Amino acid sequence: MGLIAIGAAIAVLTGAGAGIGIGIATAKATESIARQPEAKGDIRTSLILGCALAEATAIYGFVIALLIIFILGSK
Amino acid sequence: MGLIAIGAAIAVLTGAGAGIGIGIATAKATESIARQPEAKGDIRTSLILGCALAEATAIYGFVIALLIIFILGSK
Amino acid sequence: MGLIAIGAAIAVLTGAGAGIGIGIATAKATESIARQPEAKGDIRTSLILGCALAEATAIYGFVIALLIIFILGSK
Amino acid sequence: MGLIAIGAAIAVLTGAGAGIGIGIATAKATESIARQPEAKGDIRTSLILGCALAEATAIYGFVIALLIIFILGSK
Amino acid sequence: MGLIAIGAAIAVLTGAGAGIGIGIATAKATESIARQPEAKGDIRTSLILGCALAEATAIYGFVIALLIIFILGSK
Amino acid sequence: MGLIAIGAAIAVLTGAGAGIGIGIATAKATESIARQPEAKGDIRTSLILGCALAEATAIYGFVIALLIIFILGSK
Amino acid sequence: MGLIAIGAAIAVLTGAGAGIGIGIATAKATESIARQPEAKGDIRTSLILGCALAEATAIYGFVIALLIIFILGSK
Amino acid sequence: MGLIAIGAAIAVLTGAGAGIGIGIATAKATESIARQPEAKGDIRTSLILGCALAEATAIYGFVIALLIIFILGSK
Amino acid sequence: MGLIAIGAAIAVLTGAGAGIGIGIATAKATESIARQPEAKGDIRTSLILGCALAEATAIYGFVIALLIIFILGSK
Amino acid sequence: MGLIAIGAAIAVLTGAGAGIGIGIATAKATESIARQPEAKGDIRTSLILGCALAEATAIYGFVIALLIIFILGSK
Amino acid sequence: MGLIAIGAAIAVLTGAGAGIGIGIATAKATESIARQPEAKGDIRTSLILGCALAEATAIYGFVIALLIIFILGSK
Amino acid sequence: MGLIAIGAAIAVLTGAGAGIGIGIATAKATESIARQPEAKGDIRTSLILGCALAEATAIYGFVIALLIIFILGSK
Amino acid sequence: MGLIAIGAAIAVLTGAGAGIGIGIATAKATESIARQPEAKGDIRTSLILGCALAEATAIYGFVIALLIIFILGSK
Amino acid sequence: MGLIAIGAAIAVLTGAGAGIGIGIATAKATESIARQPEAKGDIRTSLILGCALAEATAIYGFVIALLIIFILGSK
Repeated sequence: MGLIAIGAAIAVLTGAGAGIGIGIATAKATESIARQPEAKGDIRTSLILGCALAEATAIYGFVIALLIIFILGSK
Repeated sequence: MGLIAIGAAIAVLTGAGAGIGIGIATAKATESIARQPEAKGDIRTSLILGCALAEATAIYGFVIALLIIFILGSK
Repeated sequence: MGLIAIGAAIAVLTGAGAGIGIGIATAKATESIARQPEAKGDIRTSLILGCALAEATAIYGFVIALLIIFILGSK
Repeated sequence: MGLIAIGAAIAVLTGAGAGIGIGIATAKATESIARQPEAKGDIRTSLILGCALAEATAIYGFVIALLIIFILGSK
Repeated sequence: MGLIAIGAAIAVLTGAGAGIGIGIATAKATESIARQPEAKGDIRTSLILGCALAEATAIYGFVIALLIIFILGSK
Repeated sequence: MGLIAIGAAIAVLTGAGAGIGIGIATAKATESIARQPEAKGDIRTSLILGCALAEATAIYGFVIALLIIFILGSK
Repeated sequence: MGLIAIGAAIAVLTGAGAGIGIGIATAKATESIARQPEAKGDIRTSLILGCALAEATAIYGFVIALLIIFILGSK
Repeated sequence: MGLIAIGAAIAVLTGAGAGIGIGIATAKATESIARQPEAKGDIRTSLILGCALAEATAIYGFVIALLIIFILGSK
Repeated sequence: MGLIAIGAAIAVLTGAGAGIGIGIATAKATESIARQPEAKGDIRTSLILGCALAEATAIYGFVIALLIIFILGSK
Repeated sequence: MGLIAIGAAIAVLTGAGAGIGIGIATAKATESIARQPEAKGDIRTSLILGCALAEATAIYGFVIALLIIFILGSK
Repeated sequence: MGLIAIGAAIAVLTGAGAGIGIGIATAKATESIARQPEAKGDIRTSLILGCALAEATAIYGFVIALLIIFILGSK
Repeated sequence: MGLIAIGAAIAVLTGAGAGIGIGIATAKATESIARQPEAKGDIRTSLILGCALAEATAIYGFVIALLIIFILGSK
Repeated sequence: MGLIAIGAAIAVLTGAGAGIGIGIATAKATESIARQPEAKGDIRTSLILGCALAEATAIYGFVIALLIIFILGSK
Repeated sequence: MGLIAIGAAIAVLTGAGAGIGIGIATAKATESIARQPEAKGDIRTSLILGCALAEATAIYGFVIALLIIFILGSK
């Protein structure tokens, strides 16, 4: 049971990469809006697009963590 | 019981990535407001958007840690 | 069963690299749109192309994690 | 009992990421105030917003550490 | 069976390098298109060429992971 | 007793992140005062605000370390 | 059998270095084409030359991984 | 007794982060004094303020190390 | 047999350093050709010279991996 | 006795952070003197102040290492 | 026999440092030739000199790996 | 006896931080002398001051290593 | 015999630091020659001086590796 | 005997830090000579001074490695 807990924990760690990546993307997006305020719509669309893809990697880890807890943990 | 404690701990570590990422995003956002004060509304919206997505990765880890403590820990 | 859980977890960690990579790509893409708003179509096409390839590496990890849980975990 | 102590310790380590992130955000915020002193109100609002979100990740770790000590440690 | 799962997981981690690399390449490619929009065809060709080679390293890891699961895992 | 000592030690390590973060914030704050001496009051307020939040993460680790020594160590 | 799986996995990890390296090379190549479009032939030749050499290191790892699975794994 | 020694050692390692952080802060402070010698009083005040907070994290580690040696080590 | 597989795998990992190094060299070489197209012959000669030396370190690792598999693995 | 030796060794490693930090501070201090030779007194005072605080973290580690050897080692 | 294989593998890893170092040196050398084509002879001489010294460290590792395989492995 | 040898070795590793730090300080000092040759006396004094403090951390490690060998090793 | 092989291998790894260091030094030396071709003699003398000192650290590792193989390995 | 070999190896690894540090110092020294050839005497004196101090940390490691082999290894 203990190793399953550690497994679920390592799986959700995937989100740390996404957390840093989204932070970097947001940083540059705010800078871009400050430089070109009239392009804010396009910048925000790109930011959401990229962040959604990065967030997806965090969700993969979250899904695997849930699968580990509920499928492997119940055996 | 000990390994479950370590598992919950590793899961919540996911937030360290979000902590660094939000810090980087906030850093650039303050710089952007200083450079273009009249765009502060749009910059803050983007900052909140990005930080919410990054914070979400930390919350995934927090949820998994709670699940490990209350579901796996009670077996 | 515990080692299988850890294996699935390490596999899905592959997505952390993609998460950081997509973040870097999105960051520069928003900056590029701010600098050259009329090229936003081409920039977004390249961003999607690159992010799709990076996301693919995260999906490889996700697929292997699912295979480990459902094929190796059921033996 | 020893492994529970180590688990609580790893959980609170999450705060190290927030510590670095808040430091980076504060660094840029002071620079921004120096560059645009009249925008200090907006800059400070953004700084507090971002730091609160980063601090939250540290608090997640702190909460999990307390849960580990008082719930898992008392079993 | 557990060590085979961990082996497949480490193999597919190779994709994390490709994920970061493709991200860096895409980042600069979008910047290049913004700087020289009329060269977008040549830039995209080079981007696809490089990304294909980087993606290949991720596929090597994916193939080895599949081989480990289906050949070594069935013995 | 040995593992409890190691646990308390890892908990207090959280302060290393705060130590680096406060250092970065102080570095930029001195630079900002040099660039805009008349804004020194506002800069110092922001510095204290940010450092207090970063220091808080170190204190979380310190509190958990004390709890580990006095609560878990006395069982 | 498990250690052989881990061995093959570590061998193919060599490709992670190549993945990052090829990404850096492609990044600069697209920038170079944007700066000097008429030299695109020479730039692409150098890119292919360098990437082929970097890819070779990934292939060495792939070959060793295959040798480990089929030669050592069959003993 | 050996694990207690290692625990005290890890606790005092917290000071390594403070050591690097204070170094970075001092580096920028000397640069700031060179750029604006007449603001040296304010710069030094900020430097002492920040360094004291960073040093505090090192002292937390030192205190925990002493507690480990004298409280846990005497049991 | 398992430790021999891991040994061969670690040996071939040497190529990861060469992979990154060749990537950095190629990146700058393409930039140099863009800046000074008429010196492309000399630049390419230097690139091949350096890459050959870097590739050599990868080949040392490859040779040792083969020796480990065929000499130590057959004992 | 062996673990006590390792503990004392890890404790004194704290000095590595101070070593790097003092190096960074000294580097900038020499640069500052070159830029503003007439402020050399103030620069050197700040350098000594910062280095003394950084050195203190190394001394904490040294003191803990001595305590480990002479107090824990003699039990 | 397995630990000897791992030993030889770690020894040849020394070449990874040389691989990165030679890559950095070659990168700057190509840039230097582009900036000053008429000094290409002197640049190439220095590049060969430095790379030979770096390559030597890789060869030390290769020699030790061969000694481990043929001297220690035959005992 | 073996663990004492490893302890002495880890203790002297402290010098690696000092080695890097002194290198950084020397690098900037030579640059400063090139920029302001007439301030070479003051620059060298600061360099010696900083390097002596950094060297001291290496000496702490060396002293602890000697104490481990001669005091703990003779018991 | 296996641990002696690993010891010799770790000792010769010292050369990896020298390999990177010599690479950095050579990189800047070629750049310096391109900027000031008539100072090439003095630059090369300094390069050889520094590289010889760096190479020496690699040789220390090589000597210890040989001593481990021939003195400790023959006992 | 095996652990003593590993101890001697870790001790001499200290030189890796010195190797990188000396490389950085030499890199800047050659650049400084190119910028100010008439100050080459003073630059070289500072380079030798700093490198000697950095080399000293490598020698500390070398001495401890020899002590471990000849004093601890002969017991």
